[in-house]
Amino acid sequence: MNVNGKWYRAIWPNEHDPETVEIIDQRKLPHRFEIVGLTTVKKTIQAIRDMYVRGAPLIGATGAWGVYLAVVNMKDAENPLQYLKEECFKISNARPTAVNLEWAVKAMEAAILEKSNVEDWIKAAWSKAIEITEAEVKNCRQIGVHGSPLIEEISKNKNGKTVNILTHCNAGWLACVDHGTATAPIYAAFDKGIDVHVWVDETRPLNQGSRLTAWELGQHGVPHTIITDNAGGHLMQHGKVDMVIVGTDRTTHTGDVANKVGTYLKALAAKDNNVPFYVALPSSTIDWEMKNGVKDIPIENRDPDEVRKVWGLHDGHLVDVLVPPEESPALNVAFDVTPARLVTGLITERGLCKASEEGVRSLFPDKMK
Amino acid sequence: MNVNGKWYRAIWPNEHDPETVEIIDQRKLPHRFEIVGLTTVKKTIQAIRDMYVRGAPLIGATGAWGVYLAVVNMKDAENPLQYLKEECFKISNARPTAVNLEWAVKAMEAAILEKSNVEDWIKAAWSKAIEITEAEVKNCRQIGVHGSPLIEEISKNKNGKTVNILTHCNAGWLACVDHGTATAPIYAAFDKGIDVHVWVDETRPLNQGSRLTAWELGQHGVPHTIITDNAGGHLMQHGKVDMVIVGTDRTTHTGDVANKVGTYLKALAAKDNNVPFYVALPSSTIDWEMKNGVKDIPIENRDPDEVRKVWGLHDGHLVDVLVPPEESPALNVAFDVTPARLVTGLITERGLCKASEEGVRSLFPDKMK
Repeated sequence: MNVNGKWYRAIWPNEHDPETVEIIDQRKLPHRFEIVGLTTVKKTIQAIRDMYVRGAPLIGATGAWGVYLAVVNMKDAENPLQYLKEECFKISNARPTAVNLEWAVKAMEAAILEKSNVEDWIKAAWSKAIEITEAEVKNCRQIGVHGSPLIEEISKNKNGKTVNILTHCNAGWLACVDHGTATAPIYAAFDKGIDVHVWVDETRPLNQGSRLTAWELGQHGVPHTIITDNAGGHLMQHGKVDMVIVGTDRTTHTGDVANKVGTYLKALAAKDNNVPFYVALPSSTIDWEMKNGVKDIPIENRDPDEVRKVWGLHDGHLVDVLVPPEESPALNVAFDVTPARLVTGLITERGLCKASEEGVRSLFPDKMK
Repeated sequence: MNVNGKWYRAIWPNEHDPETVEIIDQRKLPHRFEIVGLTTVKKTIQAIRDMYVRGAPLIGATGAWGVYLAVVNMKDAENPLQYLKEECFKISNARPTAVNLEWAVKAMEAAILEKSNVEDWIKAAWSKAIEITEAEVKNCRQIGVHGSPLIEEISKNKNGKTVNILTHCNAGWLACVDHGTATAPIYAAFDKGIDVHVWVDETRPLNQGSRLTAWELGQHGVPHTIITDNAGGHLMQHGKVDMVIVGTDRTTHTGDVANKVGTYLKALAAKDNNVPFYVALPSSTIDWEMKNGVKDIPIENRDPDEVRKVWGLHDGHLVDVLVPPEESPALNVAFDVTPARLVTGLITERGLCKASEEGVRSLFPDKMK
């Protein structure tokens, strides 16, 4: 989507140098827009591990390009097969819980190994990385195609008055190569000329909402307002939210939705105020095994200092400030699970469905186990 | 309560100099513990307006001591009556929405004017300020007396295992001269030796939870953990919260509770997980006129920069950092209203009651209109 009036993706091969893959250093957004060139596996792993890039689809795509860079840098490896396996293993483990990463690396490896001639590996790796990246983009675009009519319908019912959409965290193009998941219907509706406005939950502790979602919406020209994570319930009570759209890190085939912590609270408020609550996701995010998401999806506890310290711009410098007393401990629960009963529907690349086993089966009979 | 092992209140007359009233500059907590001496009405108004002191009961008490200081500084006013009225008017308007402030100033004025002899005014003002302050302390202590058995009962049902209590914002002694409202039952139970642990919502945007509640609990030795405002729902889903206790800025006699924004979301999560949700309040906070709190309680929108900027300690200095893009607007809704149907009960200075007109009448038949 647009940055300073120019269309960007979250990852792309350098157009002049095919041995460099470009990413945006998202750790520094919104205060610095810095593009970083990846040329080695080591640098790619650092980018994934240290969160230059984040968001399941983007991590997957970055992993794919990492495997491509491994092949580019293979040179005269004595045992190319062993070299490839080792590099793939390292990339897969850059963030151990990222399902998309493992999947993308395996897909790359398989595509490369189809070529018996080592000279053909670079070409195969390039093609597969492009394919994986384009598939992510296409999925997101389709989520936009299927989700934007929901926004158009509300707009029609409001006689063209502003449609107010609340979102939590960043499930935007920065997390997904392009379009985003939760943002795809919003960008699609906006680009069609629908009058939309987005309430952006700041999304503590890492503020992905106020840092990333606000930035990408602003750069694309979409009207938006940042609110604290506490405010959404009040806005819904007073009719100021027409719908909620969020992304997800993992959704069970029964419709339970794991997403950034706090999503569950917004779903409760939406239910209490009859506000439709949608989850946008590519089907790669669906867990086809697990039945009870609230009980069984493992939830990551991260560094408590992410809660205790807040990062931002002071006097032209990027610094963090300690908010609570030095001695007070904190707990940093990163995700929560919204039970299916609170979800109005899922927006997938194949269309809309209910957040239930029957709903998911109706769209994905081929994937259901 | 305790600070560095010594018992403090949030306001007190200097023991060596009766013409100075001491307060804690709460703007600098938890990183600086600074006591400020008030000697004039002007300084008192500044302390109220600029939030050196906050919390309805403490603002009321500070207003009372401000009137005392007005009388102390009266000297040879040509028209003492006019002087007193003018000073009282100024103090009353230091924060226009603070009901307790207006009430306390009026009570002071009435007590002073009972004395026809101007020489007796100082003594009358001193006595009344002490009386108002002690009444606040007594109310809070009684809230502790009536609320702590709820905690003891949970402790008993858990065979003495830790009782986990979640609170939002700061309704502690810092807001209330001593004991606090929401914290009074917690301090009372803790002082009796009950094993308690408090989940402290950081309470964005001003972080009264992580800055003030965590500090006062820590200073008194009460085990606590800071969490983001997003985390409480997840903790309740997993049985890690035994009860919620919050304070309130205004509660209708029908049981609707206005409190710091985000309270409503916690009440929804408590309901969804069968966690008891209590509101602790002195009856001075009850609105005896208004029936529909969600619809009718006016909600203050504050400076958006309170959302956009976060204040804390960096490299030994107190600074703020800008989190979102400079261009992104924010909305700063300060309060929300939790409907009575989500409230398990009210803890008042006269005992417990249901959050309903009947419940409130059962305890306060004399005050009900």
